[in-house]
Amino acid sequence: MRRKEFEVEDRETCEAFLNERDDGVLTFIGSDGWPKAVPLNYAYAAGNVYFHGSKKGEKMNGLAENNRAEFIVYEAHAFIPSYYSDPLMACPATLYFRSVRIRGRVEQVEDATEKATALSALMAKLQPEGGHLPIDAGNPKYAAQLKGVAVLRLAIEAMTGKFKFGQNLSDKKRSEVIGGLEERGRPGDPLTVSFMKEWAPKQN
Amino acid sequence: MRRKEFEVEDRETCEAFLNERDDGVLTFIGSDGWPKAVPLNYAYAAGNVYFHGSKKGEKMNGLAENNRAEFIVYEAHAFIPSYYSDPLMACPATLYFRSVRIRGRVEQVEDATEKATALSALMAKLQPEGGHLPIDAGNPKYAAQLKGVAVLRLAIEAMTGKFKFGQNLSDKKRSEVIGGLEERGRPGDPLTVSFMKEWAPKQN
Repeated sequence: MRRKEFEVEDRETCEAFLNERDDGVLTFIGSDGWPKAVPLNYAYAAGNVYFHGSKKGEKMNGLAENNRAEFIVYEAHAFIPSYYSDPLMACPATLYFRSVRIRGRVEQVEDATEKATALSALMAKLQPEGGHLPIDAGNPKYAAQLKGVAVLRLAIEAMTGKFKFGQNLSDKKRSEVIGGLEERGRPGDPLTVSFMKEWAPKQN
Repeated sequence: MRRKEFEVEDRETCEAFLNERDDGVLTFIGSDGWPKAVPLNYAYAAGNVYFHGSKKGEKMNGLAENNRAEFIVYEAHAFIPSYYSDPLMACPATLYFRSVRIRGRVEQVEDATEKATALSALMAKLQPEGGHLPIDAGNPKYAAQLKGVAVLRLAIEAMTGKFKFGQNLSDKKRSEVIGGLEERGRPGDPLTVSFMKEWAPKQN
């Protein structure tokens, strides 16, 4: 059941998360009728998500037959042990995370300039320090490479975030969980505490 | 294109990776015919992967109509900049990672004892320090909770790993990449170097 209190409809918040992260799982229906999951690096640009890969294989075959896809970007932030809010029962144990799910149709990019722009966006994200010739469709050094690589464009039809940081908790339980995280002090815990405060229901 | 040199067929290696990690993305076909991707914690036990969640929602609806699923567990280890092996072209930029993909059918677990065993395995993984009453189908405190929670069992029909650590490189290129990682020294880099050596093609 998708709980409303964790849903993030705000597009800018989802986009900021997409720009922060660099990999996700692309899900599509294979030629054999089975659902498929492939982890991929991506770049988000102008309402599209771009991937690159080989021109052959199950991903290309599956998407050529049925271009409907879902792409999920996900970051686990903190496991919340049950005993932060219940001394006996295991049930409150949970994970705090951010995720954005995107539904849309995937097309192969054929235009060399759009390919170069997408691959440049990917490189800017993964290798921001540069250290390579700019990927330019007009540069003969890149012509064969651009022709040989597949670039996929996922045109976004729907995008929803799910950010789970204890929005469903009472103020008392939220304080207990924050106290537990502050005491534990794992590397991700301070950020989780700040997200818990940011996403807590506003007082009226 | 799935390159043979990155494929890991060895079941024990895949199982060890599954036992090391605790989350992945479950992929199935929704009631609306679209592929769906849901991140979930999991426990691997006796040839099955177990998940838990709400008894209502798109996951339960979709899987009730079509129980075919793929589950992927993925860990990104190191981005390899293009300039480690090519001073000009962006093309060699890549990511080294481990992933295991599992195909199978998902069933709801109805038996309270199997539910308790699955949830115990999940808690043992996520909260190994304990700090809760053992999840026991015979304990009346857990009876309503066990009845209320959905536990899903993915029965594994096929499992394949993909571990990408430069197996396709010449010895010279491999040494250059190892040198680059040793110089960079990000937190994940030493482990990546050890995987590169472990997975390098054996000399004859």
